[in-house]
Amino acid sequence: MKRVMLVVAYDGSACYGWQLQPGRRTVESELNQALSGLLKEEIQVTGASRTDSGVHALCNVAVFDTASRIPGEKFSYALNQRLPEDIRIQSSREVAPDFHPRHCDSRKTYEYRILNREFPLPTKRLYAYFTYTPLDVEKMKRAAEFLVGEHDFASFCSASSSASTTVRRIYELTVEKEGDEIIIRVCGNGFLYNMVRIIAGTLMEAGSGRRQPEEMAEILTAKNRCAAGPTAPACGLTLVRYEFL
Amino acid sequence: MKRVMLVVAYDGSACYGWQLQPGRRTVESELNQALSGLLKEEIQVTGASRTDSGVHALCNVAVFDTASRIPGEKFSYALNQRLPEDIRIQSSREVAPDFHPRHCDSRKTYEYRILNREFPLPTKRLYAYFTYTPLDVEKMKRAAEFLVGEHDFASFCSASSSASTTVRRIYELTVEKEGDEIIIRVCGNGFLYNMVRIIAGTLMEAGSGRRQPEEMAEILTAKNRCAAGPTAPACGLTLVRYEFL
Repeated sequence: MKRVMLVVAYDGSACYGWQLQPGRRTVESELNQALSGLLKEEIQVTGASRTDSGVHALCNVAVFDTASRIPGEKFSYALNQRLPEDIRIQSSREVAPDFHPRHCDSRKTYEYRILNREFPLPTKRLYAYFTYTPLDVEKMKRAAEFLVGEHDFASFCSASSSASTTVRRIYELTVEKEGDEIIIRVCGNGFLYNMVRIIAGTLMEAGSGRRQPEEMAEILTAKNRCAAGPTAPACGLTLVRYEFL
Repeated sequence: MKRVMLVVAYDGSACYGWQLQPGRRTVESELNQALSGLLKEEIQVTGASRTDSGVHALCNVAVFDTASRIPGEKFSYALNQRLPEDIRIQSSREVAPDFHPRHCDSRKTYEYRILNREFPLPTKRLYAYFTYTPLDVEKMKRAAEFLVGEHDFASFCSASSSASTTVRRIYELTVEKEGDEIIIRVCGNGFLYNMVRIIAGTLMEAGSGRRQPEEMAEILTAKNRCAAGPTAPACGLTLVRYEFL
Protein backbone atom coordinates (compact mmCIF):
# COMPACT_ATOMS: atom_id res chain seq x y z
CA MET A 1 0.00 0.00 0.00
CA LYS A 2 1.09 3.56 -0.58
CA ARG A 3 -0.37 7.01 0.01
CA VAL A 4 -0.66 9.40 -2.93
CA MET A 5 -1.23 13.15 -2.72
CA LEU A 6 -3.16 15.01 -5.41
CA VAL A 7 -3.18 18.77 -6.00
CA VAL A 8 -6.63 19.51 -7.40
CA ALA A 9 -7.97 22.58 -9.25
CA TYR A 10 -11.70 23.02 -9.78
CA ASP A 11 -14.40 25.39 -10.85
CA GLY A 12 -16.88 25.17 -7.98
CA SER A 13 -19.82 26.64 -9.96
CA ALA A 14 -21.49 23.29 -10.66
CA CYS A 15 -20.39 21.36 -7.55
CA TYR A 16 -22.05 21.13 -4.15
CA GLY A 17 -18.69 21.87 -2.56
CA TRP A 18 -15.91 19.45 -1.74
CA GLN A 19 -17.44 17.07 0.74
CA LEU A 20 -19.47 13.92 -0.06
CA GLN A 21 -23.22 14.45 0.11
CA PRO A 22 -25.73 11.74 -0.75
CA GLY A 23 -27.10 12.14 -4.27
CA ARG A 24 -25.13 15.31 -5.01
CA ARG A 25 -22.20 16.03 -7.26
CA THR A 26 -19.20 17.14 -5.20
CA VAL A 27 -15.46 17.37 -5.91
CA GLU A 28 -14.85 14.47 -3.53
CA SER A 29 -17.45 12.25 -5.20
CA GLU A 30 -15.97 12.94 -8.63
CA LEU A 31 -12.45 12.14 -7.42
CA ASN A 32 -13.57 8.91 -5.71
CA GLN A 33 -15.40 7.84 -8.85
CA ALA A 34 -12.51 8.60 -11.20
CA LEU A 35 -9.97 6.87 -8.93
CA SER A 36 -12.14 3.82 -8.29
CA GLY A 37 -12.74 3.48 -12.04
CA LEU A 38 -9.04 3.79 -12.80
CA LEU A 39 -7.79 1.44 -10.09
CA LYS A 40 -10.68 -1.06 -9.94
CA GLU A 41 -10.64 -0.77 -6.16
CA GLU A 42 -12.86 1.27 -3.84
CA ILE A 43 -11.03 4.56 -3.26
CA GLN A 44 -11.98 7.23 -0.75
CA VAL A 45 -9.95 10.45 -0.77
CA THR A 46 -9.27 12.67 2.25
CA GLY A 47 -9.31 16.38 1.48
CA ALA A 48 -7.36 19.24 3.02
CA SER A 49 -9.92 22.05 2.65
CA ARG A 50 -13.58 21.11 2.54
CA THR A 51 -14.61 24.10 0.45
CA ASP A 52 -18.27 25.17 0.24
CA SER A 53 -20.62 24.94 -2.68
CA GLY A 54 -19.59 27.42 -5.37
CA VAL A 55 -16.06 28.05 -4.05
CA HIS A 56 -13.19 27.50 -6.50
CA ALA A 57 -9.67 26.14 -6.01
CA LEU A 58 -6.40 26.21 -7.91
CA CYS A 59 -4.67 23.83 -5.51
CA ASN A 60 -6.75 21.95 -2.99
CA VAL A 61 -5.08 18.79 -1.69
CA ALA A 62 -6.35 15.22 -1.34
CA VAL A 63 -4.69 11.96 -0.35
CA PHE A 64 -5.70 8.33 -0.86
CA ASP A 65 -4.24 4.89 -0.25
CA THR A 66 -3.87 2.32 -2.97
CA ALA A 67 -2.27 -1.02 -3.70
CA SER A 68 -1.70 0.07 -7.30
CA ARG A 69 1.77 -0.02 -8.83
CA ILE A 70 1.13 3.15 -10.86
CA PRO A 71 3.93 5.59 -9.88
CA GLY A 72 2.61 8.49 -7.76
CA GLU A 73 3.49 11.17 -10.31
CA LYS A 74 1.54 9.43 -13.11
CA PHE A 75 -1.87 9.81 -11.46
CA SER A 76 -2.35 13.39 -12.66
CA TYR A 77 -2.29 12.31 -16.32
CA ALA A 78 -4.42 9.20 -15.83
CA LEU A 79 -7.06 10.95 -13.71
CA ASN A 80 -7.42 13.99 -15.96
CA GLN A 81 -8.58 11.62 -18.72
CA ARG A 82 -11.45 10.50 -16.49
CA LEU A 83 -12.45 13.67 -14.66
CA PRO A 84 -15.10 16.14 -15.88
CA GLU A 85 -13.63 19.33 -17.32
CA ASP A 86 -14.37 21.44 -14.24
CA ILE A 87 -11.88 19.37 -12.17
CA ARG A 88 -8.21 18.95 -13.12
CA ILE A 89 -5.32 17.40 -11.19
CA GLN A 90 -2.32 19.75 -11.19
CA SER A 91 0.23 17.31 -9.78
CA SER A 92 0.45 14.00 -7.90
CA ARG A 93 3.14 12.24 -5.89
CA GLU A 94 3.67 9.56 -3.27
CA VAL A 95 3.81 10.82 0.33
CA ALA A 96 4.60 9.24 3.71
CA PRO A 97 1.92 6.68 4.71
CA ASP A 98 1.03 8.73 7.82
CA PHE A 99 0.71 12.08 6.02
CA HIS A 100 -2.72 13.59 6.74
CA PRO A 101 -3.47 16.88 4.99
CA ARG A 102 -5.63 18.25 7.84
CA HIS A 103 -3.33 17.18 10.69
CA CYS A 104 -0.19 19.04 9.76
CA ASP A 105 0.93 22.66 9.83
CA SER A 106 0.06 24.54 6.69
CA ARG A 107 -0.39 27.98 5.22
CA LYS A 108 -3.39 28.52 2.98
CA THR A 109 -4.03 31.52 0.78
CA TYR A 110 -7.49 32.49 -0.42
CA GLU A 111 -8.47 35.23 -2.85
CA TYR A 112 -11.83 36.96 -2.75
CA ARG A 113 -12.62 38.88 -5.95
CA ILE A 114 -15.12 41.73 -6.19
CA LEU A 115 -16.15 43.26 -9.50
CA ASN A 116 -16.92 46.89 -8.66
CA ARG A 117 -18.43 48.82 -11.56
CA GLU A 118 -21.77 50.07 -12.81
CA PHE A 119 -22.88 46.88 -14.59
CA PRO A 120 -21.94 43.18 -14.26
CA LEU A 121 -19.59 41.59 -16.80
CA PRO A 122 -20.94 38.18 -17.85
CA THR A 123 -17.45 36.73 -18.37
CA LYS A 124 -16.57 37.48 -14.74
CA ARG A 125 -19.84 36.42 -13.12
CA LEU A 126 -18.69 32.94 -12.07
CA TYR A 127 -15.43 34.03 -10.43
CA ALA A 128 -16.10 37.43 -8.83
CA TYR A 129 -18.87 38.91 -6.71
CA PHE A 130 -20.43 41.90 -8.43
CA THR A 131 -21.46 45.09 -6.64
CA TYR A 132 -22.16 48.52 -8.10
CA THR A 133 -21.80 50.19 -4.68
CA PRO A 134 -18.49 52.10 -4.95
CA LEU A 135 -15.91 50.64 -2.57
CA ASP A 136 -13.02 52.68 -1.18
CA VAL A 137 -9.99 50.40 -1.35
CA GLU A 138 -7.96 52.57 1.06
CA LYS A 139 -10.60 52.15 3.75
CA MET A 140 -10.70 48.40 3.12
CA LYS A 141 -6.91 48.26 3.50
CA ARG A 142 -7.07 50.12 6.81
CA ALA A 143 -9.79 47.80 8.09
CA ALA A 144 -7.82 44.73 6.97
CA GLU A 145 -4.78 45.69 9.07
CA PHE A 146 -6.74 45.08 12.29
CA LEU A 147 -7.15 41.39 11.45
CA VAL A 148 -3.51 40.51 10.78
CA GLY A 149 -1.85 38.42 13.51
CA GLU A 150 -3.18 35.90 16.01
CA HIS A 151 -6.74 36.65 17.16
CA ASP A 152 -9.87 34.96 18.36
CA PHE A 153 -11.95 35.08 15.17
CA ALA A 154 -15.21 33.94 16.80
CA SER A 155 -16.98 36.97 15.27
CA PHE A 156 -15.85 35.81 11.82
CA CYS A 157 -17.11 32.24 12.16
CA SER A 158 -20.50 30.88 11.10
CA ALA A 159 -22.60 29.72 14.02
CA SER A 160 -22.70 26.18 12.65
CA SER A 161 -18.95 25.68 13.13
CA SER A 162 -17.74 22.85 15.37
CA ALA A 163 -14.13 24.08 15.71
CA SER A 164 -12.57 23.42 19.13
CA THR A 165 -10.89 26.83 19.19
CA THR A 166 -11.65 30.01 17.25
CA VAL A 167 -8.10 31.36 17.54
CA ARG A 168 -6.32 31.59 14.20
CA ARG A 169 -3.29 33.40 12.81
CA ILE A 170 -3.51 35.57 9.71
CA TYR A 171 -0.03 36.07 8.23
CA GLU A 172 -1.08 38.46 5.53
CA LEU A 173 -4.28 40.21 4.45
CA THR A 174 -4.07 42.56 1.48
CA VAL A 175 -6.62 44.48 -0.59
CA GLU A 176 -5.68 45.48 -4.12
CA LYS A 177 -7.40 47.12 -7.04
CA GLU A 178 -6.77 45.67 -10.51
CA GLY A 179 -8.82 47.58 -13.08
CA ASP A 180 -12.42 47.30 -11.91
CA GLU A 181 -11.72 44.30 -9.66
CA ILE A 182 -10.86 44.44 -5.98
CA ILE A 183 -8.91 41.44 -4.73
CA ILE A 184 -8.77 40.52 -1.05
CA ARG A 185 -5.90 38.07 -0.47
CA VAL A 186 -5.59 36.35 2.89
CA CYS A 187 -2.92 33.92 4.04
CA GLY A 188 -3.32 32.08 7.35
CA ASN A 189 -2.59 28.90 9.25
CA GLY A 190 -6.21 27.81 9.00
CA PHE A 191 -9.64 29.32 8.63
CA LEU A 192 -12.89 28.87 10.52
CA TYR A 193 -16.12 27.99 8.75
CA ASN A 194 -16.99 30.85 6.34
CA MET A 195 -14.22 32.99 7.88
CA VAL A 196 -12.82 34.37 4.61
CA ARG A 197 -16.28 35.15 3.24
CA ILE A 198 -17.27 36.94 6.48
CA ILE A 199 -14.00 38.91 6.39
CA ALA A 200 -14.77 39.85 2.76
CA GLY A 201 -18.34 40.87 3.63
CA THR A 202 -17.11 43.00 6.55
CA LEU A 203 -14.31 44.65 4.55
CA MET A 204 -16.88 45.54 1.88
CA GLU A 205 -18.92 47.33 4.56
CA ALA A 206 -15.80 49.30 5.49
CA GLY A 207 -15.26 50.08 1.79
CA SER A 208 -18.81 51.32 1.25
CA GLY A 209 -18.68 53.59 4.30
CA ARG A 210 -21.27 51.63 6.28
CA ARG A 211 -18.60 51.02 8.94
CA GLN A 212 -15.44 52.78 10.03
CA PRO A 213 -12.21 50.77 9.52
CA GLU A 214 -11.52 51.18 13.26
CA GLU A 215 -14.64 49.14 14.11
CA MET A 216 -12.73 45.97 13.19
CA ALA A 217 -11.06 46.02 16.62
CA GLU A 218 -14.47 46.05 18.34
CA ILE A 219 -15.78 43.29 16.09
CA LEU A 220 -12.88 41.04 17.12
CA THR A 221 -13.43 41.84 20.80
CA ALA A 222 -17.15 41.08 20.58
CA LYS A 223 -16.47 37.38 19.76
CA ASN A 224 -19.98 37.28 18.33
CA ARG A 225 -20.96 36.48 14.76
CA CYS A 226 -23.61 39.22 14.83
CA ALA A 227 -20.93 41.89 15.27
CA ALA A 228 -19.37 41.26 11.84
CA GLY A 229 -20.75 41.90 8.35
CA PRO A 230 -22.56 39.46 6.05
CA THR A 231 -21.05 36.30 4.57
CA ALA A 232 -19.99 37.32 1.04
CA PRO A 233 -21.24 35.03 -1.78
CA ALA A 234 -19.24 31.89 -2.56
CA CYS A 235 -18.49 32.61 -6.24
CA GLY A 236 -15.90 35.30 -5.38
CA LEU A 237 -13.75 32.89 -3.35
CA THR A 238 -10.83 30.82 -4.66
CA LEU A 239 -8.26 28.77 -2.74
CA VAL A 240 -5.10 29.86 -4.55
CA ARG A 241 -2.20 28.44 -2.52
CA TYR A 242 -1.56 25.61 -0.09
CA GLU A 243 1.82 25.12 1.61
CA PHE A 244 2.68 22.37 4.05
CA LEU A 245 5.28 23.55 6.57
CA MET B 1 -39.27 57.07 -33.71
CA LYS B 2 -35.75 57.13 -32.42
CA ARG B 3 -32.67 54.93 -32.78
CA VAL B 4 -31.02 53.61 -29.65
CA MET B 5 -27.51 52.12 -29.42
CA LEU B 6 -26.67 49.40 -26.88
CA VAL B 7 -23.20 48.34 -25.78
CA VAL B 8 -23.53 44.65 -24.96
CA ALA B 9 -21.25 42.31 -22.97
CA TYR B 10 -21.78 38.57 -23.09
CA ASP B 11 -20.32 35.22 -22.21
CA GLY B 12 -20.58 33.32 -25.50
CA SER B 13 -20.21 29.85 -23.92
CA ALA B 14 -23.91 29.01 -24.04
CA CYS B 15 -24.94 31.01 -27.12
CA TYR B 16 -24.92 29.98 -30.77
CA GLY B 17 -23.14 33.22 -31.59
CA TRP B 18 -24.66 36.63 -32.20
CA GLN B 19 -26.83 36.14 -35.25
CA LEU B 20 -30.44 34.90 -35.30
CA GLN B 21 -30.78 31.21 -36.10
CA PRO B 22 -34.09 29.39 -36.13
CA GLY B 23 -34.67 27.45 -32.92
CA ARG B 24 -31.34 28.40 -31.36
CA ARG B 25 -30.40 30.69 -28.51
CA THR B 26 -28.28 33.58 -29.80
CA VAL B 27 -27.33 36.97 -28.37
CA GLU B 28 -29.52 38.65 -30.99
CA SER B 29 -32.55 36.49 -30.17
CA GLU B 30 -32.18 37.24 -26.45
CA LEU B 31 -31.92 40.98 -27.09
CA ASN B 32 -34.94 40.98 -29.42
CA GLN B 33 -36.97 39.05 -26.87
CA ALA B 34 -36.01 41.29 -23.92
CA LEU B 35 -36.66 44.48 -25.92
CA SER B 36 -39.96 43.29 -27.38
CA GLY B 37 -41.10 42.27 -23.90
CA LEU B 38 -40.10 45.61 -22.41
CA LEU B 39 -41.56 47.80 -25.17
CA LYS B 40 -44.59 45.72 -26.20
CA GLU B 41 -43.62 46.23 -29.85
CA GLU B 42 -41.73 43.92 -32.23
CA ILE B 43 -38.06 44.91 -31.95
CA GLN B 44 -35.26 43.68 -34.20
CA VAL B 45 -31.72 44.78 -33.32
CA THR B 46 -28.88 45.30 -35.83
CA GLY B 47 -25.50 44.19 -34.55
CA ALA B 48 -22.01 45.55 -35.26
CA SER B 49 -19.98 42.33 -34.98
CA ARG B 50 -21.74 39.05 -35.68
CA THR B 51 -19.51 36.99 -33.41
CA ASP B 52 -19.37 33.20 -33.75
CA SER B 53 -20.67 30.57 -31.39
CA GLY B 54 -18.55 30.51 -28.22
CA VAL B 55 -16.90 33.93 -28.76
CA HIS B 56 -17.23 36.46 -25.91
CA ALA B 57 -17.64 40.24 -25.92
CA LEU B 58 -17.18 43.07 -23.46
CA CYS B 59 -18.62 45.69 -25.80
CA ASN B 60 -20.42 44.56 -28.92
CA VAL B 61 -22.83 47.15 -30.33
CA ALA B 62 -26.45 46.91 -31.40
CA VAL B 63 -29.01 49.49 -32.53
CA PHE B 64 -32.80 49.38 -32.74
CA ASP B 65 -35.63 51.74 -33.56
CA THR B 66 -38.50 52.35 -31.22
CA ALA B 67 -41.47 54.65 -30.69
CA SER B 68 -40.97 54.36 -26.91
CA ARG B 69 -40.54 57.48 -24.79
CA ILE B 70 -38.04 55.77 -22.49
CA PRO B 71 -34.88 57.95 -22.58
CA GLY B 72 -32.01 56.25 -24.46
CA GLU B 73 -29.72 56.03 -21.42
CA LYS B 74 -32.36 54.23 -19.33
CA PHE B 75 -32.48 51.12 -21.52
CA SER B 76 -29.40 49.55 -19.93
CA TYR B 77 -31.07 49.34 -16.51
CA ALA B 78 -34.43 48.19 -17.83
CA LEU B 79 -32.97 45.53 -20.14
CA ASN B 80 -30.58 44.08 -17.58
CA GLN B 81 -33.61 43.17 -15.46
CA ARG B 82 -34.94 41.06 -18.32
CA LEU B 83 -31.80 39.53 -19.84
CA PRO B 84 -30.27 36.19 -18.79
CA GLU B 85 -27.14 36.55 -16.66
CA ASP B 86 -24.73 35.77 -19.49
CA ILE B 87 -25.74 38.98 -21.33
CA ARG B 88 -25.49 42.46 -19.79
CA ILE B 89 -25.96 45.89 -21.35
CA GLN B 90 -23.03 48.16 -20.45
CA SER B 91 -24.53 51.44 -21.70
CA SER B 92 -27.28 52.77 -23.94
CA ARG B 93 -27.98 56.07 -25.66
CA GLU B 94 -29.93 57.65 -28.46
CA VAL B 95 -28.03 58.00 -31.75
CA ALA B 96 -28.73 59.65 -35.12
CA PRO B 97 -31.60 57.90 -36.95
CA ASP B 98 -29.28 56.97 -39.85
CA PHE B 99 -26.47 55.53 -37.67
CA HIS B 100 -25.68 51.96 -38.80
CA PRO B 101 -23.02 50.14 -36.77
CA ARG B 102 -21.68 48.16 -39.74
CA HIS B 103 -21.67 51.05 -42.24
CA CYS B 104 -19.33 53.43 -40.48
CA ASP B 105 -15.62 53.60 -39.82
CA SER B 106 -14.61 51.80 -36.67
CA ARG B 107 -11.67 50.28 -34.83
CA LYS B 108 -12.26 46.95 -33.14
CA THR B 109 -9.95 45.23 -30.69
CA TYR B 110 -10.04 41.50 -30.03
CA GLU B 111 -8.09 39.51 -27.45
CA TYR B 112 -7.19 35.88 -27.94
CA ARG B 113 -6.12 34.16 -24.71
CA ILE B 114 -4.01 31.01 -24.53
CA LEU B 115 -3.40 29.14 -21.28
CA ASN B 116 0.05 27.61 -21.73
CA ARG B 117 1.00 25.25 -18.90
CA GLU B 118 1.20 21.55 -18.13
CA PHE B 119 -2.44 21.04 -17.05
CA PRO B 120 -5.68 22.93 -17.73
CA LEU B 121 -7.13 25.22 -15.06
CA PRO B 122 -10.90 24.65 -14.77
CA THR B 123 -11.58 28.29 -13.83
CA LYS B 124 -9.99 29.47 -17.10
CA ARG B 125 -11.44 26.86 -19.43
CA LEU B 126 -14.32 29.00 -20.73
CA TYR B 127 -12.22 32.07 -21.56
CA ALA B 128 -8.84 30.80 -22.76
CA TYR B 129 -7.66 28.09 -25.12
CA PHE B 130 -5.47 25.56 -23.32
CA THR B 131 -2.34 24.03 -24.79
CA TYR B 132 0.52 22.26 -23.01
CA THR B 133 2.83 22.69 -26.02
CA PRO B 134 5.35 25.31 -24.88
CA LEU B 135 4.98 28.50 -26.93
CA ASP B 136 7.85 30.94 -27.44
CA VAL B 137 6.34 34.41 -27.04
CA GLU B 138 9.31 36.14 -28.68
CA LYS B 139 8.81 34.12 -31.86
CA MET B 140 5.08 34.90 -31.79
CA LYS B 141 5.88 38.60 -31.47
CA ARG B 142 8.24 38.48 -34.46
CA ALA B 143 5.63 36.65 -36.53
CA ALA B 144 2.95 39.15 -35.52
CA GLU B 145 4.94 42.12 -36.84
CA PHE B 146 4.51 40.88 -40.42
CA LEU B 147 0.73 41.31 -40.21
CA VAL B 148 0.60 44.91 -39.01
CA GLY B 149 -0.50 47.42 -41.66
CA GLU B 150 -2.77 47.18 -44.71
CA HIS B 151 -2.66 43.76 -46.37
CA ASP B 152 -4.76 41.38 -48.37
CA PHE B 153 -5.70 38.90 -45.65
CA ALA B 154 -7.25 36.30 -48.01
CA SER B 155 -5.04 33.61 -46.42
CA PHE B 156 -6.53 34.47 -43.03
CA CYS B 157 -10.16 34.24 -44.09
CA SER B 158 -12.42 31.20 -43.91
CA ALA B 159 -13.49 29.93 -47.29
CA SER B 160 -17.16 30.53 -46.47
CA SER B 161 -16.67 34.31 -46.31
CA SER B 162 -18.69 36.51 -48.64
CA ALA B 163 -16.64 39.70 -48.12
CA SER B 164 -16.29 41.88 -51.25
CA THR B 165 -12.63 42.62 -50.51
CA THR B 166 -10.12 40.79 -48.34
CA VAL B 167 -7.96 43.87 -47.75
CA ARG B 168 -7.95 45.03 -44.13
CA ARG B 169 -5.77 47.24 -41.95
CA ILE B 170 -4.31 46.02 -38.67
CA TYR B 171 -3.30 49.01 -36.52
CA GLU B 172 -1.76 47.00 -33.74
CA LEU B 173 -1.02 43.33 -33.03
CA THR B 174 0.72 42.49 -29.77
CA VAL B 175 1.59 39.26 -27.99
CA GLU B 176 2.12 39.38 -24.22
CA LYS B 177 2.73 36.88 -21.49
CA GLU B 178 0.86 37.34 -18.19
CA GLY B 179 1.76 34.53 -15.81
CA ASP B 180 0.86 31.32 -17.67
CA GLU B 181 -1.43 33.08 -20.14
CA ILE B 182 -0.42 34.42 -23.54
CA ILE B 183 -2.60 37.24 -24.82
CA ILE B 184 -2.76 38.15 -28.49
CA ARG B 185 -4.34 41.61 -28.87
CA VAL B 186 -5.29 42.83 -32.32
CA CYS B 187 -6.79 46.16 -33.30
CA GLY B 188 -8.05 46.73 -36.85
CA ASN B 189 -10.57 48.54 -39.01
CA GLY B 190 -12.47 45.33 -39.60
CA PHE B 191 -11.88 41.60 -39.67
CA LEU B 192 -12.72 38.90 -42.18
CA TYR B 193 -14.63 35.75 -41.21
CA ASN B 194 -12.53 33.85 -38.61
CA MET B 195 -9.57 36.17 -39.28
CA VAL B 196 -8.52 36.69 -35.64
CA ARG B 197 -8.82 32.98 -34.86
CA ILE B 198 -6.73 32.05 -37.93
CA ILE B 199 -4.12 34.66 -36.95
CA ALA B 200 -4.07 33.15 -33.44
CA GLY B 201 -3.74 29.60 -34.82
CA THR B 202 -0.90 30.66 -37.12
CA LEU B 203 0.95 32.62 -34.40
CA MET B 204 0.73 29.54 -32.16
CA GLU B 205 2.45 27.53 -34.90
CA ALA B 206 5.22 30.14 -34.93
CA GLY B 207 5.41 29.92 -31.12
CA SER B 208 5.68 26.14 -31.08
CA GLY B 209 8.45 26.13 -33.70
CA ARG B 210 6.34 24.45 -36.39
CA ARG B 211 6.85 27.54 -38.55
CA GLN B 212 9.45 30.27 -38.78
CA PRO B 213 8.17 33.79 -37.96
CA GLU B 214 9.41 34.90 -41.41
CA GLU B 215 6.91 32.56 -43.12
CA MET B 216 4.15 35.05 -42.31
CA ALA B 217 5.20 37.14 -45.33
CA GLU B 218 4.76 34.13 -47.64
CA ILE B 219 1.42 33.26 -46.09
CA LEU B 220 0.12 36.76 -46.86
CA THR B 221 1.43 36.57 -50.43
CA ALA B 222 -0.19 33.18 -51.04
CA LYS B 223 -3.71 34.66 -50.64
CA ASN B 224 -4.89 31.12 -49.92
CA ARG B 225 -6.52 29.88 -46.73
CA CYS B 226 -4.49 26.64 -46.92
CA ALA B 227 -1.25 28.58 -46.48
CA ALA B 228 -2.11 29.73 -42.93
CA GLY B 229 -2.45 27.72 -39.71
CA PRO B 230 -5.62 26.28 -38.16
CA THR B 231 -8.56 28.31 -36.86
CA ALA B 232 -7.99 28.54 -33.10
CA PRO B 233 -10.98 27.51 -30.93
CA ALA B 234 -13.67 30.13 -30.24
CA CYS B 235 -13.50 30.11 -26.43
CA GLY B 236 -10.18 32.02 -26.39
CA LEU B 237 -11.62 34.99 -28.30
CA THR B 238 -13.17 38.13 -26.78
CA LEU B 239 -14.19 41.39 -28.45
CA VAL B 240 -12.76 43.87 -25.95
CA ARG B 241 -13.10 47.28 -27.58
CA TYR B 242 -15.20 49.00 -30.22
CA GLU B 243 -14.59 52.59 -31.32
CA PHE B 244 -16.56 54.49 -33.93
CA LEU B 245 -14.37 57.05 -35.71
